[in-house]
This record gives sequence, structure tokens and C-alpha cells, in this order.
Amino acid sequence: MSANTGTRGETVPTVPPANPAVDTADVAALLERGRTLSTPVLRAAVDRLAQPMDTVAAYHFGWIDAHGRPADGDGGKAVRPALALLSAEAAGAPPETGVPGAVAVELVHNFSLLHDDLMDGDEQRRHRDTVWKVHGPAQAILVGDALFALANELLLELGTVEAGRATRRLTTATRKLIDGQAQDISYEHRERVTVEECLEMEGNKTGALLACAASIGAVLGGADDRTADALEAYGYHLGLAFQAVDDLLGIWGDPVATGKQTWSDLRQRKKSLPVVAALAAGGPASERLGELLAADAKSPDLDGFSEEEFATRAALIEEAGGREWTSREARRQHAIAVEALDRVDMPARVRAQLAALADFVVVRKR
Amino acid sequence: MSANTGTRGETVPTVPPANPAVDTADVAALLERGRTLSTPVLRAAVDRLAQPMDTVAAYHFGWIDAHGRPADGDGGKAVRPALALLSAEAAGAPPETGVPGAVAVELVHNFSLLHDDLMDGDEQRRHRDTVWKVHGPAQAILVGDALFALANELLLELGTVEAGRATRRLTTATRKLIDGQAQDISYEHRERVTVEECLEMEGNKTGALLACAASIGAVLGGADDRTADALEAYGYHLGLAFQAVDDLLGIWGDPVATGKQTWSDLRQRKKSLPVVAALAAGGPASERLGELLAADAKSPDLDGFSEEEFATRAALIEEAGGREWTSREARRQHAIAVEALDRVDMPARVRAQLAALADFVVVRKR
Repeated sequence: MSANTGTRGETVPTVPPANPAVDTADVAALLERGRTLSTPVLRAAVDRLAQPMDTVAAYHFGWIDAHGRPADGDGGKAVRPALALLSAEAAGAPPETGVPGAVAVELVHNFSLLHDDLMDGDEQRRHRDTVWKVHGPAQAILVGDALFALANELLLELGTVEAGRATRRLTTATRKLIDGQAQDISYEHRERVTVEECLEMEGNKTGALLACAASIGAVLGGADDRTADALEAYGYHLGLAFQAVDDLLGIWGDPVATGKQTWSDLRQRKKSLPVVAALAAGGPASERLGELLAADAKSPDLDGFSEEEFATRAALIEEAGGREWTSREARRQHAIAVEALDRVDMPARVRAQLAALADFVVVRKR
Repeated sequence: MSANTGTRGETVPTVPPANPAVDTADVAALLERGRTLSTPVLRAAVDRLAQPMDTVAAYHFGWIDAHGRPADGDGGKAVRPALALLSAEAAGAPPETGVPGAVAVELVHNFSLLHDDLMDGDEQRRHRDTVWKVHGPAQAILVGDALFALANELLLELGTVEAGRATRRLTTATRKLIDGQAQDISYEHRERVTVEECLEMEGNKTGALLACAASIGAVLGGADDRTADALEAYGYHLGLAFQAVDDLLGIWGDPVATGKQTWSDLRQRKKSLPVVAALAAGGPASERLGELLAADAKSPDLDGFSEEEFATRAALIEEAGGREWTSREARRQHAIAVEALDRVDMPARVRAQLAALADFVVVRKR
């Protein structure tokens, strides 16, 4: 792997591709296919919402700007739709079978973004003001609720036994997502969080929905529980790898790429993996970091902090080994995810594409 | 019907019982049965939530006080659970068949209360501080989300075709509930709302979930769509009657009984039925009311208003006929609801009990 020199914007964990035959152009094509097949269905679903919720949702998805003018916004990386379509193919169904699942997962993901941004007081997402900043807290709550309901509606109106099973898995994932957000909030008020607690929280907050994305297409395609569970395991560990990378980008990410503030997670006092691993490591840097963060915890907010004060904390996290530990954890989870694919009898092309998506998740810069 | 003298706390619309053989003791027993059978299942469901969401939910339901001590709070009238159980019996199933439906509907209802109280800034519910006042906005959002997810989870884990159909109906009702809240919020910012718009909003906000409560037990009991639709129609119009009475209580209700402030809906500038009917009526009182409310709309809030200022507005609403119109509307919707019962072939006892519940809804004082 490449050296971690602590410079923001640098690629942090580099992973040897699981399948050298699959290059980044293929991943781009997979992401694009997911976007192309799911976006029209997503837009039609959002069009069902009553005014002004349809407008607010369209703003959130980047289809219009704050003044209602058409926009070509950054709708996110679209990893989940790509996974849902490949998931259908893994069960021998055409990719289109996964589309309602892809859209339902995207709706739940965006429901959680709308509510989390409000709860966390985040003012920016994808380089734009968040919904609660532009349209007010009530609309952020309401449109989030509506997207959640729409996700279930879209699946259940398929009226099949498979759709019922898919909805049940999505509901379980959504409950875990909410548990994870509850843990995330409560950890922000605690002085110490263990590495295990942090991993459990991230498994709930990120792993569960990626697990659902990776299995929902197969479930809709009639896969048995064993196949669906193996694909869930792939998605779950991919989610943990994804989140470990997110935690690295939350401290050392390039604001131009991530669309977030510098030292974003440190500003919010997030007990993310690099922080908890550094605090658990022991030694002088770990202890100094612990003292600083304990003192910070007594301030009502960190708005008055200079860039240097955050840089000091980031350097201590790195010195205590939190950055390296998190990079290793991303690679470890990536390996478990890819191994899980061996438990499913699927076409070699689909397996290679799922492995390529896993590689992409750990080398991304945003 | 009794005279409407404009004194708060008086019973407003009196309706001749549809079945004189069913008295209020029977209704109390029906409500009690709904509570007794559904509460243990509801509590077990809430116990699944991660800390601190289980505590926050227990506070919301009145099982503990703000300090976590056991409480015997007022959990609401429990009309919905009573309906869900009778609904199962209307389809020839035992009342117990309706329990998961009763609990799912209660979970959705309370999800909407948690979010609506926050969006509307309501500080009191059922004589206690609302969740966002005690535990903060983030917990109100999060626990609301969790209750919504739990409702679907509870139904879908039954794993039957009937449960899938029930979940689909519940999801549709929830979407309407959210549409109704969106309309309610947007109407507060508009100077004029038509009576038709107000009825549509109330149909979404109150009718849809009562429709679901009145049909979900039957759906779980294997009823065909025709039976379920007729029971939905009963519940929908019962919901409109319920809401018309709520609108009367929101202006002229006794705060001791309702647990809300005096002139509650006027303080919040709600465009409720008595208000929109009075504004649509024409004549000197209607015009004077229109002038006053247009001037009020320019104030940032009405906190500085005296009791007399609200009393003046309430008197104008009554003089313009808004109170009488709303009482008549409650009776009209009650009649349509009871008529819908004739479209279902059900035991005479169950029909009489559903009719008695309808009577109760329109004569209640809280």
C-alpha cells in the first residue's frame, strides 16, 4: 500500500485489485448503469409526493437548485444501485429485476441523509446547502418520512412473495440504520467509545443498508435465503470497509473532492474509527490526544478553533496509529467481503464486477 | 342536538346513537379490550429499540416520566386498537388476529405525533411535555423513525400473504398521513384555504389511518378486498367525523379534558374546519373575521395575544356559522361511516359495536 504522509487529499488505503482484469472504466460503467436504470424510476416515485415535498426532494437529489431551476447535481456515487443490479444478476435474473430494490434502497438512504443532516446540524452535503438549511427543518423531517414510506410502497406494490421478503429485509436494515444513528449521537456525548462499539455503530449505520443493496436484487430475482445471506455478508463487510474509508476522508479528505469542510469529523467531535483506535492505542501521542479531546468536550462548540488546532489533533491521531489502523481495517473488511462472494454460485463476470466494486469503494477519494 | 352556546368545555355535537342497545359502558369495555390486548405487544416491540430510544419511546407512551420513573400515563383514547380488533371480528376471525395490526397502526400514529409535535412546535400532549421538549429534537426525529420502521417489521415478520397485504395498506395510509401533514403546514402560511382543501387534508391526516385501523384486522383475518374496502370507507368517514370534533375541541374544548392550551388551534393559526367554513360563509362576521386573521397573519407569532383576543375570534367564527357547520359535518360523516357497515356481512354484535364506537367518537370531550 502507498505511504500515509498525512497530507489531505491523498489516496489513503490502496488495495491490490481482487481481479486485475477489471479496471476502473468497468466500475464507472457499472455505476453509470445503476444510475441510468434506477434514476427514471426514482424520479417517477418522487413525482408521487404532494407539493411542496416533491420540490424539496428534487432539490435534495440535485435535480433542481434552491430556486427551483433544473440542475444537474451530484447525486452521489450510486454504489447502492450498482450493487442492487449486480445482485439480481448474481441470482441469474436480469439486472432490471433489481431496479425496484435499487430505488427502494436509495429512498431509504436519502431518508436517512435528510434526517441525519438535520440531527447533526450539517449544513453542506454534496457541495450544496442541506435541505433543512434551504427549506427548513419541518420539510427535512417530512420529506424524509415520505421517502421512507415511498420505499416500502414501491416494493410492496409489486405484489409478489419476493417483494414481501425484500421489504422485510429492507425494514430490518432500516431499523439497524436508525439504531446506528442513535449510537452515533450518543457516542458524541461520551468521553470514551471502544473500537468495538464504533465498529458496531458503523455496521448498523453503513453496513446494514449496503448489505441490503447487495442482496435485494437477488431476493427480487427469487434467490434462496442462503444466497441472499452470503450477498448480505459481502455487502455488510463492504459497508464496513466503505465506512472506514469515509472515516479517513472525514479527517484527511480533500474538501474539494468530498464537498465537506476540512477536518469535518473533528469539527463535529465524531468518535470515528481513527479517533477511537488512536485513543485505544496507548503511548504518549494517544494520551496527549485524550487530554485534548477531553478538554474540547467541555466547550459548547469548536467554532472558534483554528485550522492549526484541528491539524494538531489529526497529527496526534496519526502518530498514535489511528490512521494506519483504520487503513488496515478497511483492507481487512474488503477481504472478508470478497471472500463471501465464493459462497454464491454466480457467473464469473458478475463475481468479478462485484469484486471490482469492492476495490473501488476502498480506493475512492470522496 | 344540544344548543351550542359557545361555552368552552360543553359537549358540542350530540348524535342519536345508531344502536340504542349499545351504551357507553360497552364502548369503554371495547376501548379497554383494545388496550389490554395490544399494550403488551406494543411494549415488547418498543423494548426492541436500542438505548436511549426505548426510554424516549416509553416516555412518549406515558409508561415512564421524564426522570425515568414508572408512570401510569394517559396513553390516549385507544380508538384505533379497538377498531383493529373489531375489524378482525368483522371478517369472522378472533379479535387476537387484529393485534399485530392494532400495534402497527398505533406505532405509525405515534411516529406521526412525535414528528408533528416537533414540526408544529407543540410543547404539550396528553397533559405532559412533548418528547422534543424533554429529550430534544434529534430524539423526537429518531424515535419517530424507529416506530415507523417497527410497525412494518412487526407486520412483515408474520411472514404471511395477509401480512404483506396489510403492510401495503398501512404504507399507503402512512403516505397519505404525511401528505396531510404537508398540506396542514402549507395551509398555515396561506391566507385562504377552501373547505374542500381542508377536508382533503383532514382525510389524509386523520381519515387514512383510521381507515387502515378499521380494515387491517379484517385483512389479517383473510378478508377479501371488497370487505376490506367497505371497512376502510367506514374508518375513513369516521376519521373525518373524528377530526371535525377535534377541530371543535381545538377551539372550544376544555383544556382540563383535552390537555391542550385554551384556543389551541387559534394560537397556532390552524386553518381548521370551523375557521375555513366561517371564512367561506360570507356576511359581516365572516368578513370581520377575515380582516382580523389577515392582520394576525402578519405577526411573527400570537404569543402576546390576550384570552379576550382569541375569544373575539372564536365568537366571530361561531357567529359566521363555522361552529354549527362543523358540528353538522361531524354528523354527516358519522352517518356515511355507519352506512358503510351495511356493505359488510358481519355478526350483528360486531356491527353494533362498530356503530357504538362511531357514536363515541362524535360525542367525546377530549
